[in-house]
Amino acid sequence: MNISVQQFLNEKDFNIKNYDISEAHNTLENNMPADKNMTGWVRMHISDTELNKIKMLSEKIRKQSDILIVIGAGGSYCGARAVIELLKSQNYNDLTENSPKIYFLGHNLSGIYMENILKICDKGEVSVNVISKSGTTLEPSTAFRILRNYMEKRYGQDGAKDRIVCTTDAEKGILRSLCNKVGYETLVVPANIGGRYSVLTPVGLLPIAVSGIDIDELLRGAYDGEKEYAVPENNSCYEYAALRKYLADKGKNVEMIATFEPCAETFLQWHRQLYAESLGKNGIGILPTVAVYTRDLHSIGQFIQDGSPILFETVFKFQNVDSTCEIPFDEENSDDLNYAANQKLSDINNSSIDGVIKAHNEGNVPVIQVTIPKLDAYNVGNLIYFLERSCAINGILDKINPFDQPGVEAYKKNIQKILRNKA
Amino acid sequence: MNISVQQFLNEKDFNIKNYDISEAHNTLENNMPADKNMTGWVRMHISDTELNKIKMLSEKIRKQSDILIVIGAGGSYCGARAVIELLKSQNYNDLTENSPKIYFLGHNLSGIYMENILKICDKGEVSVNVISKSGTTLEPSTAFRILRNYMEKRYGQDGAKDRIVCTTDAEKGILRSLCNKVGYETLVVPANIGGRYSVLTPVGLLPIAVSGIDIDELLRGAYDGEKEYAVPENNSCYEYAALRKYLADKGKNVEMIATFEPCAETFLQWHRQLYAESLGKNGIGILPTVAVYTRDLHSIGQFIQDGSPILFETVFKFQNVDSTCEIPFDEENSDDLNYAANQKLSDINNSSIDGVIKAHNEGNVPVIQVTIPKLDAYNVGNLIYFLERSCAINGILDKINPFDQPGVEAYKKNIQKILRNKA
Repeated sequence: MNISVQQFLNEKDFNIKNYDISEAHNTLENNMPADKNMTGWVRMHISDTELNKIKMLSEKIRKQSDILIVIGAGGSYCGARAVIELLKSQNYNDLTENSPKIYFLGHNLSGIYMENILKICDKGEVSVNVISKSGTTLEPSTAFRILRNYMEKRYGQDGAKDRIVCTTDAEKGILRSLCNKVGYETLVVPANIGGRYSVLTPVGLLPIAVSGIDIDELLRGAYDGEKEYAVPENNSCYEYAALRKYLADKGKNVEMIATFEPCAETFLQWHRQLYAESLGKNGIGILPTVAVYTRDLHSIGQFIQDGSPILFETVFKFQNVDSTCEIPFDEENSDDLNYAANQKLSDINNSSIDGVIKAHNEGNVPVIQVTIPKLDAYNVGNLIYFLERSCAINGILDKINPFDQPGVEAYKKNIQKILRNKA
Repeated sequence: MNISVQQFLNEKDFNIKNYDISEAHNTLENNMPADKNMTGWVRMHISDTELNKIKMLSEKIRKQSDILIVIGAGGSYCGARAVIELLKSQNYNDLTENSPKIYFLGHNLSGIYMENILKICDKGEVSVNVISKSGTTLEPSTAFRILRNYMEKRYGQDGAKDRIVCTTDAEKGILRSLCNKVGYETLVVPANIGGRYSVLTPVGLLPIAVSGIDIDELLRGAYDGEKEYAVPENNSCYEYAALRKYLADKGKNVEMIATFEPCAETFLQWHRQLYAESLGKNGIGILPTVAVYTRDLHSIGQFIQDGSPILFETVFKFQNVDSTCEIPFDEENSDDLNYAANQKLSDINNSSIDGVIKAHNEGNVPVIQVTIPKLDAYNVGNLIYFLERSCAINGILDKINPFDQPGVEAYKKNIQKILRNKA
């Protein structure tokens, strides 16, 4: 198993045998009748044809553009951003030289946000990737109408057509009809994979490939995960699910998902989306909330150590990060820091992980540590599969459906109703 | 009163008269013996000399640099970033033309993060503003040692000196000694204002001024707030404090602080820092967690509507945002969106605020709405004072000291001990 899970619990009565792991395993593998059609990601294999099309389109976008605007909401937004920032840096747009800058749009209704993105578009050659299974979600569809209008004014009808790629359902929906009419290039959102499980489908893979990340390696990590984490026993992925259930049953309703690498912040927001939307229903579920350390130790660190005892912590530890930066020695030592001179920052960061886990645990905060052996495309693919599968198993243990989102669907309908009534 | 508070509660038994508001008011105004020395922000007035020095230094930085690196942790980091993004855009660095790009450093120990910032430094002329009251906090002091080394190699000893401004204690501490020795320009962190209450002191004002924001307007808003919110009755600022206490007493231990403007995300992270660090102690306190809507309605929206009933929501509504962007009319209506055509996005966004508050409230989530009449420097200054004062009053109602941070101090000592033992 690539990814390991360690527990630092205050009470010592956790036993994975108390949970129906093998039943949950069988349910996920063989027996999800209600949403059988939403488990496409469990054995997900992209055809060579689709994969080659993603690569071809990403090469084209890389050649013809300085800027890629990715339009999508929810699962069509979180995943690509998460992987690009985790593997390339949260300053990807500042640092990129050979790949287009990438901006995300269509996940909110702010006029200010839209105007700023349009100003950014004016700074270079633009391509657009719009992602929507149905084409009816308000945020991406309004954003796409505004961007289509912008692109057609700027590049003409044909020029715009050559710079827009739509990722949508293979056959159904209003966006598919629009593509058929206009002739946009398209990629397919698999019908049996929900938005929040879609990062390793064309939904996430096209923007990720545009950033220059090796998507073959990402997929290889996920495919290996499909084998590693599909065993009913001694499975770190199932252990994480059972630990979450154990802690929720103890009244810990908030999970502080934490990283010591700032580039992982949006990756944890993807985790937050996956777990909150999958498991927050029927009046139960853990609220995941994101912390980036050591930054947030100077703020919510106070609450974690001494505030209401409502939370547990899951620390994602990336080993072998690619960094050699050291603290230089200073002869005058005017800042009294020579005790740390010639140490690698990444080693100091690692020491602080161990120190923080120890301190929080001594302060009665249960901690789960998830260790990822290396920060690279292979291991990130593996981690994505680990988290998706663990989330599904957690839902089955909770006896809820981890693949629906009735609350979100209700919101989508409400907002449309409000606007249609106003119109 | 500039800022108003509205309640959407499920139970109707909230009465502000149940709380010792006028006693808390008197305590804050006249009687904070234990930390009398940390209430400098209650009647905060920056001298003309200090204000002119901030303006002079910010002009110099604007002229000589393409990039400003702001080094600081906790309260020396959150505030400036919050105000710059809220008033200029979270894409400030992408959009700025006449002001330097601004990057924040010294709030984490990641080697990857440091290396990326150094790569960014190579792209233009650099100035550095290091902010630390004591100079001993590990993250900013290691970052400053690395940056001093970088600057001296690049610009020579004198050139580097001309590009570094230190914001630190007036007399004490290791950073002050270093400044005296080398001769850096300095600004003063007031001794009687803690980090998280320091955004409207030189700590926040220098970087904010560098971004081109009118700091006189920001201060005018805060000074008006000092008058408006220092009255014991009919005070929206105290109402927010009492409502938080009321909801905590009802078992709502998590506050979803939400905005519909993505540019306010880091401002809410500043709120989170202020409230979590001030009020999360003695085993009590509400955990604030940030949501940006409509983005997060597609993710944690599910949890909010249907998950564990542990939270209440505080929605920050900015009226009169400066945006005219409309949804264009499309004759073919291929996306079926003409029902929203010719509407301003900002109007649609406002409709969605009302719809979401109604829906969440109907789903038994108590909601507080904080309404800010305009998104401009004056009102943001006013809002900062509103939140600082409300936080302090909330702490006094909770019978805790809202100005200390024993958990954070313990963390700072631990991490130093770990490193000194390793060395």
